[in-house]
Amino acid sequence: MKRTGYFNGEIGNLDTMTIPLCDRSVFYGDAVYDAILVLDSKPFTLDMHLDRLYRSCELVGIEFNMTRETLKAEIDRLLCTPCDREAMLYIQVTRGNAPRKHEFPLDTKPNLIMYISPITLPGKDKRATLASIEDMRFEYCNIKTTNLMPNVFAAQRATSLGATEALMHRGERVTEAAHSSILMIKEGKIIMPPLDRFILPGITRAIITELCDKEGIPTEERVFTVSELMDADEIILCSTTKNVIFVYEIDGKAVGGKAQALAKKIQDMFFDKIYEETGVRL
Amino acid sequence: MKRTGYFNGEIGNLDTMTIPLCDRSVFYGDAVYDAILVLDSKPFTLDMHLDRLYRSCELVGIEFNMTRETLKAEIDRLLCTPCDREAMLYIQVTRGNAPRKHEFPLDTKPNLIMYISPITLPGKDKRATLASIEDMRFEYCNIKTTNLMPNVFAAQRATSLGATEALMHRGERVTEAAHSSILMIKEGKIIMPPLDRFILPGITRAIITELCDKEGIPTEERVFTVSELMDADEIILCSTTKNVIFVYEIDGKAVGGKAQALAKKIQDMFFDKIYEETGVRL
Repeated sequence: MKRTGYFNGEIGNLDTMTIPLCDRSVFYGDAVYDAILVLDSKPFTLDMHLDRLYRSCELVGIEFNMTRETLKAEIDRLLCTPCDREAMLYIQVTRGNAPRKHEFPLDTKPNLIMYISPITLPGKDKRATLASIEDMRFEYCNIKTTNLMPNVFAAQRATSLGATEALMHRGERVTEAAHSSILMIKEGKIIMPPLDRFILPGITRAIITELCDKEGIPTEERVFTVSELMDADEIILCSTTKNVIFVYEIDGKAVGGKAQALAKKIQDMFFDKIYEETGVRL
Repeated sequence: MKRTGYFNGEIGNLDTMTIPLCDRSVFYGDAVYDAILVLDSKPFTLDMHLDRLYRSCELVGIEFNMTRETLKAEIDRLLCTPCDREAMLYIQVTRGNAPRKHEFPLDTKPNLIMYISPITLPGKDKRATLASIEDMRFEYCNIKTTNLMPNVFAAQRATSLGATEALMHRGERVTEAAHSSILMIKEGKIIMPPLDRFILPGITRAIITELCDKEGIPTEERVFTVSELMDADEIILCSTTKNVIFVYEIDGKAVGGKAQALAKKIQDMFFDKIYEETGVRL
């Protein structure tokens, strides 16, 4: 496994690298992050991820002053290290080092943590399953922070039940999976939860929206319920490390599979976009 | 400043110590912690804190197999290092090191992080003020995890408004302060929020309850609202690093001050208890 780490300019073996004990991500989860698909050392939609990363910093008030140009140069240095054809680039910006106190000193200097590591992408024909679980997360789910304990619980529970992912819901309202977005197809339309404080603005989801707009496939943002989802024509699970896959079972009940041509079309458009940008045909 | 750190048996300068980059507290806030008041190198109510720490581990499924005896021996080693008369002992148990993946390998070995650092306790006559803020935290507030970003936001906001602490509320319901418990005195009774998933079981609060029981002062656990709090006879703010202080202002409005004898009695009982256990008269 070629897993290469990065901390404030230093590159090394991820498994043996260290960070300061007093980094605020250790005590408070006071950090934001993003994760990017890398194929043949080429990052996919890097700018969209960096837009989100800088926005996350702004939303939590981390003054990350590194210019995008410099950050990209640092990323390039990391991408030059040997890795597998399919990999994930992880970037975390922390508030920085400070003696532990909830309130942070305003002049704290952020730390930059990155790594690149091989991943195994699911096949296009992966038949995903979901296990439902109440969404207990905080109300800052629109920000990609490392406060991820509830996501860990949800993912762990889904895995222990043999499911691909967790279906999180606040009461009847569907929010997200533990580390993926959930969309549904109903009567020829792609329906997505509105981007409020309960939903992370997923990049894969944003690309799907763009591609649908281009192709004239209607999309709609609105709240939908677990019962509506169970009854959807198709259910799409999407994320940086899953791309676009379909759900055929929720809590042991068969779902979806009723608009396979449209679902397939969306998946194909997405993989074409990957090919266009990276030259890699998955 | 004599700040001494500890990581898995190694003791050193807190400001320069490091931990593995792949510790899960860095990526997920996948860790629990506790904080103990130390006076003249003697920890106050250490066993109550260790009870809570081990319970936190259980609640999040961290298999922390170190016996209490061994842990206490390690704490003793740390308490032997030079420190000020008033200090805080911090203990964090993390899930351990693992390649980043939401689901954790079941054989992950926990890491133990500790430090001791001087603190400044508020005076007994401190007149605390609160700034109200909607409680946006997750629904695992009964567990002392390092997923503390919303607490950081709340504390930062309170401080920026010149307040001692944040008054967090879910709608009308009062929950906690950003890093303290909130109790109120009404008609000779100490009223505390019920210990459900929105409330951390505070040790200082538990000691107050014990002392009140012994003295025949009635206590009650029930939900109360912001309006009720504004109208309380006295408002108590309590925590490991604040002990017991009183609130005289919320959002710029005068509150409390109507049952000073009882409030003072509770504070005195608490400081007597500190004296009994540590020999230090604050």
